Amino acid sequence: MKPELREGERLDDLQRNGLSIIQTPGKFCFGMDAVLLSGFASVRAGERVLDLGTGTGIIPILLSAKTQAKELVGLEIQHESAEQADRSVRLNGLEERVRIVEGDLREAAGLFGAASFDVVTSNPPYMMDSHGLQNPDAALAIARHEILCSLEDVIAQAAKVLKPGGHFYMVHRPFRLAEIISLMVQYRLEPKRMRLVYPRVDQEPNMVLIEGVRGGRSRMTVEKPLIVYGADGKYTPEIYEIYGF
Amino acid sequence: MKPELREGERLDDLQRNGLSIIQTPGKFCFGMDAVLLSGFASVRAGERVLDLGTGTGIIPILLSAKTQAKELVGLEIQHESAEQADRSVRLNGLEERVRIVEGDLREAAGLFGAASFDVVTSNPPYMMDSHGLQNPDAALAIARHEILCSLEDVIAQAAKVLKPGGHFYMVHRPFRLAEIISLMVQYRLEPKRMRLVYPRVDQEPNMVLIEGVRGGRSRMTVEKPLIVYGADGKYTPEIYEIYGF
Repeated sequence: MKPELREGERLDDLQRNGLSIIQTPGKFCFGMDAVLLSGFASVRAGERVLDLGTGTGIIPILLSAKTQAKELVGLEIQHESAEQADRSVRLNGLEERVRIVEGDLREAAGLFGAASFDVVTSNPPYMMDSHGLQNPDAALAIARHEILCSLEDVIAQAAKVLKPGGHFYMVHRPFRLAEIISLMVQYRLEPKRMRLVYPRVDQEPNMVLIEGVRGGRSRMTVEKPLIVYGADGKYTPEIYEIYGF
Repeated sequence: MKPELREGERLDDLQRNGLSIIQTPGKFCFGMDAVLLSGFASVRAGERVLDLGTGTGIIPILLSAKTQAKELVGLEIQHESAEQADRSVRLNGLEERVRIVEGDLREAAGLFGAASFDVVTSNPPYMMDSHGLQNPDAALAIARHEILCSLEDVIAQAAKVLKPGGHFYMVHRPFRLAEIISLMVQYRLEPKRMRLVYPRVDQEPNMVLIEGVRGGRSRMTVEKPLIVYGADGKYTPEIYEIYGF
């Protein structure tokens, strides 16, 4: 075990710029959704980025390698997770650009100020509080269920902390799409671009990537399907490319 | 020229139950969107169906063959088009089940009564009034642009004429998806099912098929992609199946 690691933790190579990340198998682990979101998000040089509910810190850490963002802030409410993400940032020597803040995303505008970011990303809990089996592990339940924040909280805070014309990128489940779009329209984070992720070409999508622009006009682009597995059962070339192999 | 036909008209075989339809090439013609909508819509035996902006009458005529609907009403504001659709109904001997009504869809609830249909279908004009090249032919411009009705009019009237729990099926363009979904949520036609139509698997979708339920709860299914052309440049088997070849 490396000195940075604690009981139950594992160090994983991110296959990009020599980066690695600390995860706790079965508890705090990132998924393909976070990686796809980091590939979907577009960040210009010098921009400030906020990731709402950052978990392991995977999104700001990947975006630090993929973009020339000036500052990337990851906000996380769970102490254990925020502390772990902070160690991953230091382990990678990213303290100059990536900052993990322990706090409630429902107070993001209070913590950072209104209209203070160019880009907001989020891979929020997918399940409604009352739906699905809740994990008996409280930390996992909070990461997966809308216990400490709702979809509306995420969208409302993103709209507040974004500058006018700022971009919001979220990954979520397609079964919530009607809520996602109607809330984005309601909070004036106009949906501008969407991509559905299909495990295979003949299956229903299991993820949706969506981009909104604060104060944008109504017209959206639905992109070509993102298909994860080819007919040979292996990742498609596009997935390999996003993962950076 | 058959006796039913007028100058410029053509009689086309619908490849289903011996049905045919009168069209005016370059003017009143149905497209693949109407055919796909008739395949996407689900109508149970004995139900009453209203098609808002029926054009050639293609949707009620196809649904008369594909379903056991008790009554199918096509509402069309343009006199020439309504009269032509009515001749197609009589030509096919469908007068008992299909009725073409000349009128304004914005007055559908007044014409037919609130909560009077089990199913509403619509293949409305796609282009915003101020966008895109308007066709110099007024009849075509009305069919394609939101000159006489807006997307909101279609959704608002569908919500009014549907019974609680009734189903709404629409085909539209993906670039309007944010408006479509937010208006459906606003008028309590909860989006429940959506399918994107991709010309080819590596292209952006050019149509969206969407189903709403009046007063439904929020949870939607996004279906597997509907792909029109295979790698060989021919229609995919699913398209042939919907067309009924």
